[in-house]
Amino acid sequence: MALRTLGAKAAAALDQELMSSGAFSLDQLMELAGLSVSQALFKLQPPSRGNRILIAVGPGNNGGDGLVAARHLWHYGYKPTVYYPKRPKNELYQRLTTQLQDLNVPFTSDFHSSLSQTDYIIDSIFGFSFSGEVREPFPSVISALATTKIPVLAVDAPSSWNIETGPPDQGPGKEYNPDALISLTAPKPLVKWFEGKHFVGGRFLTKDMAEKYQLDVPPYEGIDQVVEVPVR
Amino acid sequence: MALRTLGAKAAAALDQELMSSGAFSLDQLMELAGLSVSQALFKLQPPSRGNRILIAVGPGNNGGDGLVAARHLWHYGYKPTVYYPKRPKNELYQRLTTQLQDLNVPFTSDFHSSLSQTDYIIDSIFGFSFSGEVREPFPSVISALATTKIPVLAVDAPSSWNIETGPPDQGPGKEYNPDALISLTAPKPLVKWFEGKHFVGGRFLTKDMAEKYQLDVPPYEGIDQVVEVPVR
Repeated sequence: MALRTLGAKAAAALDQELMSSGAFSLDQLMELAGLSVSQALFKLQPPSRGNRILIAVGPGNNGGDGLVAARHLWHYGYKPTVYYPKRPKNELYQRLTTQLQDLNVPFTSDFHSSLSQTDYIIDSIFGFSFSGEVREPFPSVISALATTKIPVLAVDAPSSWNIETGPPDQGPGKEYNPDALISLTAPKPLVKWFEGKHFVGGRFLTKDMAEKYQLDVPPYEGIDQVVEVPVR
Repeated sequence: MALRTLGAKAAAALDQELMSSGAFSLDQLMELAGLSVSQALFKLQPPSRGNRILIAVGPGNNGGDGLVAARHLWHYGYKPTVYYPKRPKNELYQRLTTQLQDLNVPFTSDFHSSLSQTDYIIDSIFGFSFSGEVREPFPSVISALATTKIPVLAVDAPSSWNIETGPPDQGPGKEYNPDALISLTAPKPLVKWFEGKHFVGGRFLTKDMAEKYQLDVPPYEGIDQVVEVPVR
């Protein structure tokens, strides 16, 4: 049976609660989220099957998760390349970027030509706080994600999808349905329209919080920070 | 062959460098360190073989690593109990404590009676910045660690050992040689006197930093944050 879902407003409230009364720092949560993403990618594509990973990083926290994932992937033996065209002056994101630069992880400004040299893509452009329109330079990136034959793992949401209502009626995301999705903390309602492999990550939810937000704690195994779960 | 070691002063300098030019936050490093500790414990004692873990937490960053480990162990299905007698007014340690309280992890004020109800002990009392004398209430705790038949995993250093010169000439730590040790980032010179199973954790060292501090990047496997390595 599928896990219960967490709407956009509830996801924002849960995040806020984790960082206020839950006493987590954003650094800590992002580290655990990015670690989950890296472990999902490892399950989907062990480095021996092709280790070039292109990570599309958006301007917010979803992008931050991608930056953390890129670092862990490097340590696992992958060759990550990061596409990070919009970089807000945010201290945490800047630090995560420095950590990658210190590993000599390459940053590309040309997503489209990097596509031809990659084995797997991570879409960490937009997450649960996305709504409205996809702004430049992301429309053509999402078009490429929708049409490429290289597999894509989306973080929390296929970018440009509405959190509640799934794929947009028009625009580049209309035909986008990635190969894999990792839902952080809990699946969002958009999983109803998703057709690939589904993971949940973010192994820090307390039983009290799960009850309050009417969520399931997924059946993680061993030391895993991710678990594959049915979409429906 | 054994890995090269990192002296006390060099360990402090490396830590400082990770948090300045390395751009890591203490939250982030402590999360990864504590995660490593939890993974080492899982290798030593899978929950099916006895899941009651007593974690002795000291007043500094070594204690913080133990607090993080306790949280991850809870999520893996263990029953951690935390002994944390000296709690400085430090915002990060307070937050890590709240995170455990929110999971209803019990805190004990009586280390000795908790000993009889545990399957494994984690010693995260003192780490690489320890020198000098063991202050109250820790001498009797270290005596108990030295004599108990319950196995002990020490974090970075068997508490009361000198980082460079190993076990003290006198006092409770003289006869203390724990069953297992997890060295964070790199082994300290004290491993020369250690006789148990040895792990290294903290998978975030860059090649440049390893070269600068004349360290080895240990042969981590897969997504593991720890690896067992020879002591000598």
